[in-house]
Amino acid sequence: MQTTVGDFLIRRLRELGIEHMFGVPGDYNLQFLDQLQNDGSVEFVGCCNELNAAYAADGYARLRGVSALLTTYGVGDLSAICGIAGAATEHVPMVCITGAPPLHAMRRNLALHHTLAEGNYDDVMICLQQFTVAQARLTPENAVIEIDRVLTACLLEKKPVYLQLPSDVSHVIIDAPAAPLQPRAKNDEARLEAAVRHILTIWNEAQQPAILVDMDADRYGYAGTLLDFATATGTPYAALGSGKAVLPETHPLSRGLYGGRNSAPATRELIENSDCLLYVSPRFIEGNSGLFTAQLPSKGAIRLFGHSVEIEGTAYYAVEPRDLLLALKAALVNSPAAVPEGQAPRLAAPSPATDAPLSQARLWPRIARFVRAGDVVVAEAGTSNIGLMPQALPEQVSYINASIWGAIGHTLPAMLGTCLAAPERRHLLFIGDGSFQLTAQELSTLLRYDQKPIIFLVNNRGYTIERFILGMRDAYNDVANWDYQALPGVFAGQDKYLTLSARTETELEQVLQQADGTPDRLIFVELHLDPFDAPEGLKKFGPATAEFDYGPLGPQRQPQTTVTA
Amino acid sequence: MQTTVGDFLIRRLRELGIEHMFGVPGDYNLQFLDQLQNDGSVEFVGCCNELNAAYAADGYARLRGVSALLTTYGVGDLSAICGIAGAATEHVPMVCITGAPPLHAMRRNLALHHTLAEGNYDDVMICLQQFTVAQARLTPENAVIEIDRVLTACLLEKKPVYLQLPSDVSHVIIDAPAAPLQPRAKNDEARLEAAVRHILTIWNEAQQPAILVDMDADRYGYAGTLLDFATATGTPYAALGSGKAVLPETHPLSRGLYGGRNSAPATRELIENSDCLLYVSPRFIEGNSGLFTAQLPSKGAIRLFGHSVEIEGTAYYAVEPRDLLLALKAALVNSPAAVPEGQAPRLAAPSPATDAPLSQARLWPRIARFVRAGDVVVAEAGTSNIGLMPQALPEQVSYINASIWGAIGHTLPAMLGTCLAAPERRHLLFIGDGSFQLTAQELSTLLRYDQKPIIFLVNNRGYTIERFILGMRDAYNDVANWDYQALPGVFAGQDKYLTLSARTETELEQVLQQADGTPDRLIFVELHLDPFDAPEGLKKFGPATAEFDYGPLGPQRQPQTTVTA
Repeated sequence: MQTTVGDFLIRRLRELGIEHMFGVPGDYNLQFLDQLQNDGSVEFVGCCNELNAAYAADGYARLRGVSALLTTYGVGDLSAICGIAGAATEHVPMVCITGAPPLHAMRRNLALHHTLAEGNYDDVMICLQQFTVAQARLTPENAVIEIDRVLTACLLEKKPVYLQLPSDVSHVIIDAPAAPLQPRAKNDEARLEAAVRHILTIWNEAQQPAILVDMDADRYGYAGTLLDFATATGTPYAALGSGKAVLPETHPLSRGLYGGRNSAPATRELIENSDCLLYVSPRFIEGNSGLFTAQLPSKGAIRLFGHSVEIEGTAYYAVEPRDLLLALKAALVNSPAAVPEGQAPRLAAPSPATDAPLSQARLWPRIARFVRAGDVVVAEAGTSNIGLMPQALPEQVSYINASIWGAIGHTLPAMLGTCLAAPERRHLLFIGDGSFQLTAQELSTLLRYDQKPIIFLVNNRGYTIERFILGMRDAYNDVANWDYQALPGVFAGQDKYLTLSARTETELEQVLQQADGTPDRLIFVELHLDPFDAPEGLKKFGPATAEFDYGPLGPQRQPQTTVTA
Repeated sequence: MQTTVGDFLIRRLRELGIEHMFGVPGDYNLQFLDQLQNDGSVEFVGCCNELNAAYAADGYARLRGVSALLTTYGVGDLSAICGIAGAATEHVPMVCITGAPPLHAMRRNLALHHTLAEGNYDDVMICLQQFTVAQARLTPENAVIEIDRVLTACLLEKKPVYLQLPSDVSHVIIDAPAAPLQPRAKNDEARLEAAVRHILTIWNEAQQPAILVDMDADRYGYAGTLLDFATATGTPYAALGSGKAVLPETHPLSRGLYGGRNSAPATRELIENSDCLLYVSPRFIEGNSGLFTAQLPSKGAIRLFGHSVEIEGTAYYAVEPRDLLLALKAALVNSPAAVPEGQAPRLAAPSPATDAPLSQARLWPRIARFVRAGDVVVAEAGTSNIGLMPQALPEQVSYINASIWGAIGHTLPAMLGTCLAAPERRHLLFIGDGSFQLTAQELSTLLRYDQKPIIFLVNNRGYTIERFILGMRDAYNDVANWDYQALPGVFAGQDKYLTLSARTETELEQVLQQADGTPDRLIFVELHLDPFDAPEGLKKFGPATAEFDYGPLGPQRQPQTTVTA
């Protein structure tokens, strides 16, 4: 069928389930925006800047499975690249489209604006190649094959891809296939069967089977299947911090978080002494492994990758984890192994609220009880993520966090993406003041698009996570103290939002009640916390990080030179 | 002498005249921040995010000749890379320092936070290599030689450089030279003399000598020498848009801007028919060349590079333009060539202000008369730059603009840099609402550091420059309309700023008077303009850009589909 390059790309995106595209206009992409608008099936969401747009696309893809970002060449894609690299790190499929200079100019190596004016059109591509798994510069000749190749890689590898759409190419008419694109990996059935047989030999001998989950179970779409398998076989499970809430944390089979020496002793024993450990592609960094003290058993190890499984070191390719789990379950339900009784983590019973100042120790367990099944919880790097990490969250909660990439400022725009991706769910954001300032203007877009999340701004006057690593009271860890509650009013009329604040335990209770009772607008809650208060996790993490980062004779060994209080 | 790696780097920066370092803290750079603070000679200026910090460093270097940026690895330097690429494009020397993961971890390829968790430590470096002229990953062994090599390249090539300072390296004690670093290129005296002789043979025959200036005369520090030369020899000069105000625009020898077919006829004739054209490394892009219609003569062409001169195609290396100009002047003052009489561009006499709505046609000539000699004029891409471009500005004005890179959002943070670089000067910013939203939070840092510029926010409800290219009334060119005048109050107390606004010609007069009379605080002026009004230059630039960008059968040829008004 006849179509244009731009319209074909829009159709492909729509076939993948994409209904929104985040970005910023520029002269090299206006023609594609024009096509988007005329087509009408994918809505353009104009963000305040490109990094924020990338973060929004990240949040969208976490819930929808894939997203789209539109930038302009050079100034746009390079502004977004930190967000794209974050998506690569967190295994978030994102189609990054850049409106590129006209092909006629690129092939003559003309010096243009948004370039170094040296006729070089490789530099931006080289940068994007570092953080995307497929790339193409589209021409009328290659558009069909390249678009399909690049989108397929995005969906199968669960990472960002990059398309340069030259401004004079999108309106060229081409022949394109009418059939929809359905990127799907298929099993080698013989290998699938062999893998099942191999696992059964281990499983049937095992005394202590267990499951360890990481984010990829969510990204590859088999978290539900894995839960079914655990339930059917009575297998207890733990999660890496980077896989928090992928499996329900309040389920009787949940054994909480595993992270080497940072784990609860029983959880560590369960995982490290398992003789049949089914685990999801764990990616250990210092932060989720107790500084590399995680030690998984090799005997009885069954490791799930995206499209393969490795069993005691033997790789079986073309095996979809979902199908493997279904086959395993079918084989095992008639002969379940002996498994320990389940015991669910319980939420601590709350002590009555007092007029004491709100503390980190009080805050996060209370928040855990505020979270409802099905909520989307967006937790910024720093005290928010560290405070929420040990709290067992209800079922069906999506926990959004840049657990490995750790870019501060990620979550506010990411929540714009989650809100648009799942308007039927309640969205809660927890973000510190230092992080908030990086991307604060995207609050404007949330209000512009009438979104109604609950935003908890944890105002503790600076980068508290950094304070606990080095420079507890030093000026470089301070930030300006904004009148945060005045900010929504800069962006929207009073009917669009409600601002609240709490300094004490009692005020927190009131605020939570009000927030819960006002679902018709955006809620902006400022929580005042002491700059030198921190969740227990951070009090351990800070000094350990300093030792790791700065080594012997580093400044963390010297008495702190206090400059400002 | 004995020092640490970090302290040595700080000393070198201070030797280059750097007194401020812009950036954002992160665990990989806290130890260096600690050293900065203990040393006390370079002040850390904490910005709201890294891109803004890069733009601030850009502005600082435009006035100081060099600047420093401090980020953390991965999330930090990649967030800043658009600003670093902009500095490369605009020939702005910037020392980009990133606090990198500890060397012990990098050399074991450990997976860490702020990386892709794949043990790859090349990806970020590869990206930065595209936009910096020298790079190093510092170790105790290489620190002295690499720091001096990289800083020398920065100063001599007038472009950004990149240093990775691993977090466990900065406190290691090393032996370092006591002598200060003085990167300076020296002449090959024989070549200098030969170049002078060669030029004199041309000059003495010439009927129409002329000078064409671009930004490099400013960057390489010989703009003053060039003006002396022009004045002593009575040589008329024109400037590229990218070299605006490098030579004074109200001087009798100024012939305004040259840009191919976009030039005034007399200016075009002067330059294109010159038989002895002394010109500064012009970098023609579509925007400063009248869409590549600039045609410089080859006969009698004397082209100044950073450290060499090319005369009718013959390159003389190791010739400093400044010294060449001094030698030429000495040789010519006794035998000046016949040069035309000077005639300065004159500012149009103002018509009396009325109650008519403020228009672009009214605004910019009026602003030109508001600008004083010595002001720093920071002009954002879009209507601000296009409106100010044809206005002849007074002597000693610095005109700050990303004329080639054209990243919107650049100027607000850049002005933080110019303010700190030259606190004795008056700083004026002109920025549209669309651009402002990209980096708006840096207004907070301006207020936090007690800066007192005058900010003119041109509120015309969206990306007017894009409207005139494509989508005049389309929603994708709209932005949210903020209550801009409420924004300073979010960031600081009322004694720190004054907000003003104008909708009519008369109100503009009042506003300018008030702004001029209130030098003790930051002035934030909102100017309301019609979204569909534009400077004359944009009315031509828009359609020409659309033709160039979208080509034949592009959407600019179709009747506009109006979706929103």
